[in-house]
Amino acid sequence: MQRLRLRKNADRRLKGGHLWLYSNEIDIKVTPLKGIEPGEQVIIEADNGREMGVAYVNPNSLICARVVSRDPKVALDRSLLVHRFNQALSLRKQFFKEPYYRLVHGESDLLPGLVIDRFDDILVVQINTQGMARVEADIIDALDKVIRPRVIVMSNDTSGRRMEGLPLESVVVRGELPEDGLVSLVENGVKFQVSPLEGQKTGWFYDHRDNRAWLNQWVEGKRVLDVFSYVGGWGVQAAVNGAASVTCVDASAKALSAVERNAELNGVADRVATIEGDAFEVLAALKEQGEQFDIVIVDPPAFIRKRKDLNVGERAYGRLNREAMRLLKRDGLLVSGSCSMHLLPERHKDIVRGAARHQDRHAQIIFEGHQGSDHPVHPAIPETSYLKALGVRVYRD
Amino acid sequence: MQRLRLRKNADRRLKGGHLWLYSNEIDIKVTPLKGIEPGEQVIIEADNGREMGVAYVNPNSLICARVVSRDPKVALDRSLLVHRFNQALSLRKQFFKEPYYRLVHGESDLLPGLVIDRFDDILVVQINTQGMARVEADIIDALDKVIRPRVIVMSNDTSGRRMEGLPLESVVVRGELPEDGLVSLVENGVKFQVSPLEGQKTGWFYDHRDNRAWLNQWVEGKRVLDVFSYVGGWGVQAAVNGAASVTCVDASAKALSAVERNAELNGVADRVATIEGDAFEVLAALKEQGEQFDIVIVDPPAFIRKRKDLNVGERAYGRLNREAMRLLKRDGLLVSGSCSMHLLPERHKDIVRGAARHQDRHAQIIFEGHQGSDHPVHPAIPETSYLKALGVRVYRD
Repeated sequence: MQRLRLRKNADRRLKGGHLWLYSNEIDIKVTPLKGIEPGEQVIIEADNGREMGVAYVNPNSLICARVVSRDPKVALDRSLLVHRFNQALSLRKQFFKEPYYRLVHGESDLLPGLVIDRFDDILVVQINTQGMARVEADIIDALDKVIRPRVIVMSNDTSGRRMEGLPLESVVVRGELPEDGLVSLVENGVKFQVSPLEGQKTGWFYDHRDNRAWLNQWVEGKRVLDVFSYVGGWGVQAAVNGAASVTCVDASAKALSAVERNAELNGVADRVATIEGDAFEVLAALKEQGEQFDIVIVDPPAFIRKRKDLNVGERAYGRLNREAMRLLKRDGLLVSGSCSMHLLPERHKDIVRGAARHQDRHAQIIFEGHQGSDHPVHPAIPETSYLKALGVRVYRD
Repeated sequence: MQRLRLRKNADRRLKGGHLWLYSNEIDIKVTPLKGIEPGEQVIIEADNGREMGVAYVNPNSLICARVVSRDPKVALDRSLLVHRFNQALSLRKQFFKEPYYRLVHGESDLLPGLVIDRFDDILVVQINTQGMARVEADIIDALDKVIRPRVIVMSNDTSGRRMEGLPLESVVVRGELPEDGLVSLVENGVKFQVSPLEGQKTGWFYDHRDNRAWLNQWVEGKRVLDVFSYVGGWGVQAAVNGAASVTCVDASAKALSAVERNAELNGVADRVATIEGDAFEVLAALKEQGEQFDIVIVDPPAFIRKRKDLNVGERAYGRLNREAMRLLKRDGLLVSGSCSMHLLPERHKDIVRGAARHQDRHAQIIFEGHQGSDHPVHPAIPETSYLKALGVRVYRD
């Protein structure tokens, strides 16, 4: 293996547990990056020559290397993948009774650039880096050994791949999906069918499971609005848990037909309605019509994808939370979600505060939720902590 | 009512929803503070004379006034207290099936300086400011009207009272406590008896309810260590939920005899042991004896009471989390609590990270919990958000 020499003090973050190296931290006079192929593994050395572990490299990326092992003798291969998959599985087996979860959450499971969602014996894999792409065959072999899946789908259509110079393509690499392309899952006791090849990301977002479980306790008899509903994760669960009526809003007709299918699947189609359209336009129209809800959920896609979008994105969150609150009864519950890593929890709370003040109402934050245990946070890598869900009582004094 | 004139721009925080005024924000040339009696209510005016609401004053405190109403015509009296108690009760009735909760959480329920815990028909009241002390009789009247309690205990022994110049005294002002002084409660299905006159604060900490509920799911068959156990909130619940054994550590013999009583009450005394002593000394002794646990809970009293204690306190949290991890099996679960408002969530995570790195182990944060819904957070007042509980998988690679 080639070597990559760090500049002075650039080993600190690694010692603290972090896995990333930035290109400006490499002593390129001693070990030029350009001789290394995308995805190649190298031994990382501190500036004094001490070996710190093995990393895979992408010389064309700002994050030019990601550590895969702290032992310079252990590279990322089938054997290490089997070990890491077993470690990841052991966590999930302890904290989940049914085989529906994120099995591998990238850096947090010490497998940078790799995401795997499990739908019983169907695995949906996302490979986000050159380094992981290089060991794709080993990944499939190791999964065979640890999980013995019937079907493996490569859902490789993330924007991260484009940045890494990887092609975008989703294919079934093992077994076959049913003809309709749907896979089944159970979350909080509610059944869903989703499409890993056509849907967003792996087809489902397991990360909000605990936040939905929290909300499910309080929906009985309530009138619920689910904005950015996607395939009905919040809304259909609310209906199953006794909501009097649920309205799901999404811009995608496909997502809404999945909402209908999932409502049907659980026998609650009579209490779930859908509205197709831009969220802000639909919120305005509902306000115009004088509609009022006990509970409004706003769980949009990331409004802040990059730090430079922070101001614009925060304003969008502000507007969305304001418009959502306008549709709440005098004493109602807002569930405000954000999957933008760049939106800090304190700012999120402040956006909710500002939205309530704007209408001269009071906000009490009665719940603060995060991603579930199958999306562990790596405490050295803030980027692994991204999901927020606030339960907010909004009332007039 | 007298008036208090704000300096220029000092109205901004109030407009944003905050309730506090600092003495340096008052235009004391126009409205001197010293003419106002501790606890007296005044009308707050912006620098342009616009009336902003009613606040009670303590001219001797850094926080010299706390807003009780945004309507200059509405003062804090029996009628407003009845209204606010009804608002607070309405939230709790919606989110709690049984009458065991914090009924009033100070500023977050728009009742600055007032805390009330409910144990069915027994209320334990803490009055922390001169302003609330002045309306004590109205508080009791209003509680009679809204809750009709059988017993009211004034548990006025907080350090906040000393700073406000109020006497420290705990007394029963309505009805009678049973001869043993104990009140009963149920949390997460587990029974406890606590002593509001002799215990810490109101005798019980309801704030960790949801975090304990989370842990209760994962304790079956496990060996559990509960450090700073107090009366057994975590430990006894773990035993009831099937832990193979629980060891509760506390420096107070009284707290540990309450642990034993509460274990007895739930029929799990055979699986709950106690160790009296300084937490750090007991942790060291257990390590010396080669003891190992599946789950260690460290939920200490606030190590950081004031901002100036930040560095010393963070080091104490670091040491505690490190010593706790040493007692975890190769792949174990640490529950790390902190009730220090000054310990920011990100710092808390970083302390856990550092503790794991110190032993060359990996930490995965699989749960991030906060205070329950009966301790709502006022989004304009960061001080109302104080409780943290991290669930951390600590393992060797």
